[in-house]
Amino acid sequence: MAVRVDLNISLDGYATTTDQTPEKPFGEDWGRLVSAYTATRTFRQRVFGKTDGSGTTGMDDKYATAYFEAVGAEIMGAGMFGLHNFPDDSNWRGWWGDAPPFHCPVFVLSHTERAPIRFDNGTVFHFLSASPTEVLGMAKAEAGDQDVRIGGGPTTVRTFLKAGLVDRLHVGITPIILGQGINLWDDLRGLEAGYTVTSETADTGIVHLTFAR
Amino acid sequence: MAVRVDLNISLDGYATTTDQTPEKPFGEDWGRLVSAYTATRTFRQRVFGKTDGSGTTGMDDKYATAYFEAVGAEIMGAGMFGLHNFPDDSNWRGWWGDAPPFHCPVFVLSHTERAPIRFDNGTVFHFLSASPTEVLGMAKAEAGDQDVRIGGGPTTVRTFLKAGLVDRLHVGITPIILGQGINLWDDLRGLEAGYTVTSETADTGIVHLTFAR
Repeated sequence: MAVRVDLNISLDGYATTTDQTPEKPFGEDWGRLVSAYTATRTFRQRVFGKTDGSGTTGMDDKYATAYFEAVGAEIMGAGMFGLHNFPDDSNWRGWWGDAPPFHCPVFVLSHTERAPIRFDNGTVFHFLSASPTEVLGMAKAEAGDQDVRIGGGPTTVRTFLKAGLVDRLHVGITPIILGQGINLWDDLRGLEAGYTVTSETADTGIVHLTFAR
Repeated sequence: MAVRVDLNISLDGYATTTDQTPEKPFGEDWGRLVSAYTATRTFRQRVFGKTDGSGTTGMDDKYATAYFEAVGAEIMGAGMFGLHNFPDDSNWRGWWGDAPPFHCPVFVLSHTERAPIRFDNGTVFHFLSASPTEVLGMAKAEAGDQDVRIGGGPTTVRTFLKAGLVDRLHVGITPIILGQGINLWDDLRGLEAGYTVTSETADTGIVHLTFAR
């Protein structure tokens, strides 16, 4: 088993977008940042439930397939779950509707105590305030032989990277310049030490770069 | 002819290094940032005068060859020439010794008037205070059918990119995180508009990414 990260980032390192407006609640940047990923056959099948075989099947789909494989537990920050957007809504169940595409225990780092939320598809959100090492211990116990993913957001990912807890970091780099948001690479000088870095380029222009140890 | 840029940058976008010390006047980061480029057969031949055929011959060498082709004039900032390091040395002739590897007119943007410096190999440094559009007009007149390169540093390159004056931007991205220096991508949100972006990956791990219009 490995502790892994998979993120889509812009060429200038941003993993979040900040162009949301009341009229366009998701903005336009996010769609551009993840467009090659959401166009894959695997994403369309796994997240949208499309079983018609539509979607791209090239290198981006190869990484999308790997994305969904062998994850036995996930860790995410409170912001990724939506607790910063809806801090007072105790009924908030995340962004993902009735079938969150995790199918495993998800540990949400939060200073607010909440009861676990269970879904029929195996997704269970647990809320806890713990150190990276502590929550990773719990996630590994749940994951068994499978991987633990640090899902995001980028601030949470950086915390685990800085603590030396990540075995494999895969970024899909979209060649656009966002210029604002949270930058994955901030404060990670020398990250490459101890990792082997490989990269591949998809026809879509996405650069898939992997730090592995 | 085209107005072009070729730069080596880190994965987090830095095109300069800042780890110089009195004991290590070039630092260690710079060598790591450009190591795949300086290892090429073309670089060794063109810059070091090595004619023994040593050096790498893969994709990095293909880009190194392109780097030296068809440049009829170059524009650089005062910092790249060294005027910020040696502001009071009126005899300073640049970092490149008796045979600077330009072989063409080089326009150095500087607020200090200096007489041109001419070398036997065709390199001539001109010093002038002018707007990007003005200096580009002069450089194009010198270059004729050949390209004009905006050589650096990154702040000068950014100025020309922001002004929409660059036809082709090639970056060789070295998969290291520097975390400090001058970031090429700062303040360039939306740069990709109007460009087609292509990328290739070398066995060395370098990602060659080109914005072209």
